[in-house]
Amino acid sequence: MNRKTLFEQIKQKKSFLCVGLDTDPAKIPAHLLKEADPIYEFNKQIIDATQEYTVAYKPNIAFYEALGTKGWESLQKTLEYIPKSIFTIADAKRGDIGNTSSLYAKAFFETMDFDSITVAPYMGIDSVKPFLEFKDKWVILLALTSNEGSMDFQLTRSAEGKPLFQEVLEKSSKWGTPENMMYVVGATRGEKIAEVRKIVPEHFFLVPGVGAQGGSLKDVAKYGMNSECGLLVNSSRGIIYASNGEDFAEAAGKEAKKLQEEMAVLLDKYLSL
Amino acid sequence: MNRKTLFEQIKQKKSFLCVGLDTDPAKIPAHLLKEADPIYEFNKQIIDATQEYTVAYKPNIAFYEALGTKGWESLQKTLEYIPKSIFTIADAKRGDIGNTSSLYAKAFFETMDFDSITVAPYMGIDSVKPFLEFKDKWVILLALTSNEGSMDFQLTRSAEGKPLFQEVLEKSSKWGTPENMMYVVGATRGEKIAEVRKIVPEHFFLVPGVGAQGGSLKDVAKYGMNSECGLLVNSSRGIIYASNGEDFAEAAGKEAKKLQEEMAVLLDKYLSL
Repeated sequence: MNRKTLFEQIKQKKSFLCVGLDTDPAKIPAHLLKEADPIYEFNKQIIDATQEYTVAYKPNIAFYEALGTKGWESLQKTLEYIPKSIFTIADAKRGDIGNTSSLYAKAFFETMDFDSITVAPYMGIDSVKPFLEFKDKWVILLALTSNEGSMDFQLTRSAEGKPLFQEVLEKSSKWGTPENMMYVVGATRGEKIAEVRKIVPEHFFLVPGVGAQGGSLKDVAKYGMNSECGLLVNSSRGIIYASNGEDFAEAAGKEAKKLQEEMAVLLDKYLSL
Repeated sequence: MNRKTLFEQIKQKKSFLCVGLDTDPAKIPAHLLKEADPIYEFNKQIIDATQEYTVAYKPNIAFYEALGTKGWESLQKTLEYIPKSIFTIADAKRGDIGNTSSLYAKAFFETMDFDSITVAPYMGIDSVKPFLEFKDKWVILLALTSNEGSMDFQLTRSAEGKPLFQEVLEKSSKWGTPENMMYVVGATRGEKIAEVRKIVPEHFFLVPGVGAQGGSLKDVAKYGMNSECGLLVNSSRGIIYASNGEDFAEAAGKEAKKLQEEMAVLLDKYLSL
């Protein structure tokens, strides 16, 4: 999917919501466990209930990989079930030397047909570039994450006084364009999002950490929105585990709708949609 | 596998060779393509021909992931075929927030039964620790890699004058111990290995980049060996693709033997085995 289509979807749905499909067999409602593929059945119903309010789905690959080949089958079926108008993110945090990153790109962009993949920057240019060679596919590079460990290295200042995440943004933004690169920017600190926005004014940000991880949606929009929205805000647990009874999908739909409505207000406020 | 057993194997085989099972359907001999599972058949024959000379096998997970669920099946069968006395490395370069890294750990240490996994450090402590909670399992953390892109961030100096890889070594070496952590240290620069050895005198290093990537085995041993060897030196393409005819396994065995014999000399020289 290209940037123009993504922005069209955002305007049409008045939403920049991404639903994280972090589907855990230990957390899905008991009545689904008798299905042949409980993970897929859960995802299917979540997608049915939330697709009206969301512009992106993001399965975290670890949840599927932990289940072995069965998990990969559930993932593939889930991906095929997602309507083509919705942006898909393989939250895989891959990255390896050039010829190996090419294989990961092949796995997620060809064997599967994801629109984008999250990539870790530590190994530098040749670990990222192979993902950028696919038309209308995206790299979403880790810049500033929202977890505790983000403080260990991402904020380390260089001799020139730049924190590492800034070095990552400045260098990597030259490897691709705002048409094929986004950044993961944690939502737990509003002023940090403003700092990142200054460095890369045009790129989309994938923002985790709203809800369960404690970030504020209003702050994210205030500090992070640009003229083409430039934001995909993810919620996983807050939506997909809103209930663990038979009404789980309905409850997920309600939570997604609630976030979408907040987002519509913010889009009106900052973009006059 | 624990450190003591690993060192016993090194002494017994007079080898610190790791064979990289980067098995690519486009590169394996044509006569194998008629097999039900050509990747597994290739790996099986490579393992038969090289196991006498090697103490570790390292499948790079990208090669299997690129093939979809069939690839994961080939990987699982390969892992089961490797003799239990040989150390196994899932070269996966994973790493995510805490609860997600736990799932990756489960995937590689429980669903599969690898001894170790390579992990990327960018997300910090909570992305690494979940892997350290498994008895006799290892994290092999990226420190200084051997690819072109390693120069982008790993050598960036902090305000205190430390390159990022040093920060990674100093901090992360407190998260685990030399009994459950190793480091990836590229072999393309001998003097760099000496620098890393000074910072973490006890840890094992997984050294890629000997052979195809241009590093010298003698330099690696000279600058990197410690009193318990402390080295696993990987060769992938130079061994597994030594021939692409019907004699591929025999040719691989010869290459592995050649490296093992060089290693025996170096172990004699530095450890008087």
